[in-house]
Amino acid sequence: MSGVIVTNPPKAGVEDVDALAGHGVATVHEAMGRTGLLPTRLRPIQQGARVAGTAVTVLSRPGDNLMIHAAVEQCGEGDILVVATTSPSTDGMFGELFATVLRRRGVRGLVIDAGVRDTAELREMGFPVWSAAVSAQGTGKATGGSVNVPVAIGGQVIRPGDVILADDDGVVVVPRERARWAVEASEARENKEAASRAAFLQGQLGLDRYGLRDTLAKLGVTYQSYDDHVRAGAGS
Amino acid sequence: MSGVIVTNPPKAGVEDVDALAGHGVATVHEAMGRTGLLPTRLRPIQQGARVAGTAVTVLSRPGDNLMIHAAVEQCGEGDILVVATTSPSTDGMFGELFATVLRRRGVRGLVIDAGVRDTAELREMGFPVWSAAVSAQGTGKATGGSVNVPVAIGGQVIRPGDVILADDDGVVVVPRERARWAVEASEARENKEAASRAAFLQGQLGLDRYGLRDTLAKLGVTYQSYDDHVRAGAGS
Amino acid sequence: MSGVIVTNPPKAGVEDVDALAGHGVATVHEAMGRTGLLPTRLRPIQQGARVAGTAVTVLSRPGDNLMIHAAVEQCGEGDILVVATTSPSTDGMFGELFATVLRRRGVRGLVIDAGVRDTAELREMGFPVWSAAVSAQGTGKATGGSVNVPVAIGGQVIRPGDVILADDDGVVVVPRERARWAVEASEARENKEAASRAAFLQGQLGLDRYGLRDTLAKLGVTYQSYDDHVRAGAGS
Amino acid sequence: MSGVIVTNPPKAGVEDVDALAGHGVATVHEAMGRTGLLPTRLRPIQQGARVAGTAVTVLSRPGDNLMIHAAVEQCGEGDILVVATTSPSTDGMFGELFATVLRRRGVRGLVIDAGVRDTAELREMGFPVWSAAVSAQGTGKATGGSVNVPVAIGGQVIRPGDVILADDDGVVVVPRERARWAVEASEARENKEAASRAAFLQGQLGLDRYGLRDTLAKLGVTYQSYDDHVRAGAGS
Amino acid sequence: MSGVIVTNPPKAGVEDVDALAGHGVATVHEAMGRTGLLPTRLRPIQQGARVAGTAVTVLSRPGDNLMIHAAVEQCGEGDILVVATTSPSTDGMFGELFATVLRRRGVRGLVIDAGVRDTAELREMGFPVWSAAVSAQGTGKATGGSVNVPVAIGGQVIRPGDVILADDDGVVVVPRERARWAVEASEARENKEAASRAAFLQGQLGLDRYGLRDTLAKLGVTYQSYDDHVRAGAGS
Amino acid sequence: MSGVIVTNPPKAGVEDVDALAGHGVATVHEAMGRTGLLPTRLRPIQQGARVAGTAVTVLSRPGDNLMIHAAVEQCGEGDILVVATTSPSTDGMFGELFATVLRRRGVRGLVIDAGVRDTAELREMGFPVWSAAVSAQGTGKATGGSVNVPVAIGGQVIRPGDVILADDDGVVVVPRERARWAVEASEARENKEAASRAAFLQGQLGLDRYGLRDTLAKLGVTYQSYDDHVRAGAGS
Repeated sequence: MSGVIVTNPPKAGVEDVDALAGHGVATVHEAMGRTGLLPTRLRPIQQGARVAGTAVTVLSRPGDNLMIHAAVEQCGEGDILVVATTSPSTDGMFGELFATVLRRRGVRGLVIDAGVRDTAELREMGFPVWSAAVSAQGTGKATGGSVNVPVAIGGQVIRPGDVILADDDGVVVVPRERARWAVEASEARENKEAASRAAFLQGQLGLDRYGLRDTLAKLGVTYQSYDDHVRAGAGS
Repeated sequence: MSGVIVTNPPKAGVEDVDALAGHGVATVHEAMGRTGLLPTRLRPIQQGARVAGTAVTVLSRPGDNLMIHAAVEQCGEGDILVVATTSPSTDGMFGELFATVLRRRGVRGLVIDAGVRDTAELREMGFPVWSAAVSAQGTGKATGGSVNVPVAIGGQVIRPGDVILADDDGVVVVPRERARWAVEASEARENKEAASRAAFLQGQLGLDRYGLRDTLAKLGVTYQSYDDHVRAGAGS
Repeated sequence: MSGVIVTNPPKAGVEDVDALAGHGVATVHEAMGRTGLLPTRLRPIQQGARVAGTAVTVLSRPGDNLMIHAAVEQCGEGDILVVATTSPSTDGMFGELFATVLRRRGVRGLVIDAGVRDTAELREMGFPVWSAAVSAQGTGKATGGSVNVPVAIGGQVIRPGDVILADDDGVVVVPRERARWAVEASEARENKEAASRAAFLQGQLGLDRYGLRDTLAKLGVTYQSYDDHVRAGAGS
Repeated sequence: MSGVIVTNPPKAGVEDVDALAGHGVATVHEAMGRTGLLPTRLRPIQQGARVAGTAVTVLSRPGDNLMIHAAVEQCGEGDILVVATTSPSTDGMFGELFATVLRRRGVRGLVIDAGVRDTAELREMGFPVWSAAVSAQGTGKATGGSVNVPVAIGGQVIRPGDVILADDDGVVVVPRERARWAVEASEARENKEAASRAAFLQGQLGLDRYGLRDTLAKLGVTYQSYDDHVRAGAGS
Repeated sequence: MSGVIVTNPPKAGVEDVDALAGHGVATVHEAMGRTGLLPTRLRPIQQGARVAGTAVTVLSRPGDNLMIHAAVEQCGEGDILVVATTSPSTDGMFGELFATVLRRRGVRGLVIDAGVRDTAELREMGFPVWSAAVSAQGTGKATGGSVNVPVAIGGQVIRPGDVILADDDGVVVVPRERARWAVEASEARENKEAASRAAFLQGQLGLDRYGLRDTLAKLGVTYQSYDDHVRAGAGS
Repeated sequence: MSGVIVTNPPKAGVEDVDALAGHGVATVHEAMGRTGLLPTRLRPIQQGARVAGTAVTVLSRPGDNLMIHAAVEQCGEGDILVVATTSPSTDGMFGELFATVLRRRGVRGLVIDAGVRDTAELREMGFPVWSAAVSAQGTGKATGGSVNVPVAIGGQVIRPGDVILADDDGVVVVPRERARWAVEASEARENKEAASRAAFLQGQLGLDRYGLRDTLAKLGVTYQSYDDHVRAGAGS
């Protein structure tokens, strides 16, 4: 794996990226037909942050952050750094110094399928991070890898320039060509949800709103009073 | 598994439920002879909340929240929704819209052995949740299950109407028939702990307070100065 | 395993301990040549705490906290209690009453490779804890163990009197004989990092600062424009 | 938890138990409406064994096998010993000496939600075991528990006298009152599967046999040639 | 996610596929520059099998095997079925009946990032399987998905027609366009390894064969006799 | 971490090592007062092997096997190679070529807290391995480490020359100074177990043999007939 650093990949438009930041991860994931969600092991180190940006991807060997250094130069305004490793690792590949240089370049956050350190400092700086682990374990600068190639984290492929949206619920990727569509689909879903919210606040049930009583009946789900249920021998 | 929705189960008395909310999970678990504790994978999405309520139970297939919709109608003032799945799942079966309708009905919180989403919104609403995962992954409404049947989470059985108590330490279940007894046992334990606390603040040791020096001696645990210990070849 | 309670072990000097508390776990771990880091399963129950102290070690059977009672008597001003178990356990071996008595004795915190409970109370008291689990599960006082013997947690050996430093990134152990050296090495590293931080704030890249362009070249990592990359058939 | 040893529980009939041993775990689980399956962490230490028996249940503290000794006396011809712990444990609570005495009493095997040791000897003896771990870690005899009370492992409740069926796929529990029904349902299912097997051997597809083409159509799943798919921009 | 079933994807040539089966997973993974390896959670249910085939891919919702039924029709001579789920699942989505119909169609094996059941029967049939879990848990036929679209398992993307090679070490994917190249690279690597093997059998060391003494020296790794090491205070 | 390769460490005597191989891991662990057991994640890749040897230890960075090459030269007749990594890793650091050269030098097996590959070949060669993972993932030769320094795996410290004993139950370490004592203690334990086995074969119960009826009584464990138990309201 000699590796390659790909320069100037196409990116999703900044307007679409910023529009996506107006929606939550759950909304966008749903709006896109329940696709794009990264695995639950990626957790935020802070609470209450939501960011969207264009992916600069890194594929590293575990325990080595050389390629993150290489990626920094490829990062610019509005990007989010996305780091994958060739095998599972919890090492702390990223810390406050990286965040310092990235922030200066306008980078909006980090998604890393490995460990991160200096978490107190990162929170203080307000540089948002989603990681698979927190670990002070240091890493080397001795093995190659690639920048801005497609990487897969869990079941999702992230290509350079794709939109990354992350909040307290996790991380979702939107293919760059579908960013505009995703914005519209998300807005449509939010409108639909707003209507549901209003109805629920007035006491309507999902069973009625979504027509689920029929579904229950078709599935053979029945209603039984507790007394009948116990009498039928179903225990307590 | 066609499933059944059981209506009007017996419930623990509201006075006992509210009295239990005056104690912590650790206290009640201890007071009941170290029983009732749900597995540690159930973690709060917020910090500092403590709630007690009567269980409305749901048994769902993984990746499907149809039965949560069915359960909402069975929920009322003072309840806590408890969701189990027939096999392990991290999917986000529950979010802010469910919390909106449940809160209107007086439900006090959620315990779910699967995933939850809209966590930022849930925290903002002050709707407390204990879950096995945080995930934006959406779920279907296509498979049956049951409501208000006994469910087992980890080694604990939760029946409809049992008391659920949850705080930062986790979740404990109190069988509805033992709620009164659990309140009294918890109060007794708190009194005992208050006395211990006072003694410890004045410098007494648990070794003396609980008569443990004898136990150590009987077990053959000995004291040795560091120098003797090293001299005996035990390393450093 | 009858067990032994070792008294009066040598300890790292308080000045060095306090000086180490001025540095982060990541810094000290790096300064010591990337050694001493405890496993990532040890997580803080609070955010933003950093403490350093001298280890009082406990080796217990799982589900039994008798030896923690024995250890309390060996704890004094400036110590940190370190608890290991002979096999994995999540039980809540430690809670607020222990913290009450330890705080009175001047103990600075707890590191436990098992569970802890009363976490809300511990946070309120400001008694910092790093643990492998949060669990209300109670434990017994019926089996022996040892105090102030060397224990291994993950790949690290902790001897009584060694320095424990813990913050949001995790826990590191510094052998008591190397405490002075670790302080100096940490200061040197912080100075080096301060210089790097200043350079990064002015726009320098790690690639240049650390001379990594050569490394990339030697490893055969090449640069390619996105268009060339796609044209070469590497996909998108 | 002082504990109780319950004697002479009712048991499923031996004919039904033996009839269930003629079916696989997957078949019986399906026949019972997909209920009764114990969690996947329970794995066989041997390959190719299938046994059915009536449960003698044990609830122990982790790291302590006193109650297994108590349970031995309650075990007899046709039983299977089922061991649960009050919190997770990997300790080797059971080994060849226990198997020796159990085999003499006619016990058919062990299901343990903890560790087992002497695995080579157990395989040699042909005493089948399903366990959550393999570990040589020894345990104590100092804490109480119960025998022949209902225990929950994962989402399943096992009562004394219930039928335990275990094979290479895992472990399933059949409530003692439903044993006869489960035999009949399993036979019906096997007949149905035999017909399907014959049809599949002749080339029929599940899509046709189970009428799933309609389902696909209703769900909006469409067919597309690879060339059209690529032309539609779906990538390769 | 309505889903699509893609028909007639391009496939790697059968000669190359069969040639790859002459090499182990480790060899091919190395020969391709250490790429293509699926995650270690995919374990064989049998020992000693090695198969290569062309991928027919399935993307299913967890707990639902409708799309496997759809995929069967797309499977033919020399294929390997590859099943991914949209979120983690251990359910037994595949068993002996599926293997019966697949074998009739000339399918060579199964790779499934979920559970499998009827494992004894599958081993008896000689139908090789690599799975993330063994579980008898039954699944539904109620939710859509896709067949022969690219799927990602762990960090690897598998497209329909790519080569899947699996043995006791795990599973590797070879992009269909690179199959020929992978065969040649694997043969080259095997020749190189044969030469190393011969040298090692005659006593040569890797240190010398691969010129690693220089590497050690450059990294500052030094040699020290045990006595000097202890004298230097490095403990024992 | 420049690292050091320590030469000619003291070793346990070959007679004692070979005598320990006559006992199982569980026996020796018990005989030594339940100490020395390595974590359960170390599993054999073969079934039925038991080996004892003197440890040659390696401390490597994850994903790099340079130091294993260095260790080979330090290995000789009767040794067992023990590999630890500075942070968790599943990479396949060891395969058949290493086993070829080690076997020629008289090495008896491998214990590795990381991954291994070529498992089919290793089994065929009869070179026994205990590992934390099976993975074909290749590793580099670019980072330093140490040979024959003390390493900690789980809660156990292994020093060069200590005795490693491994079988189907796992791996135990015996400090080299205690090898003779461990042999004697193991023989004593085996004699005691033989007597117990004989008694159990004749029908004696552990309850009587070990005097546990008193223990049960002291702990307050009571006997109750099933009918009384149900009548007391304890459910079924």
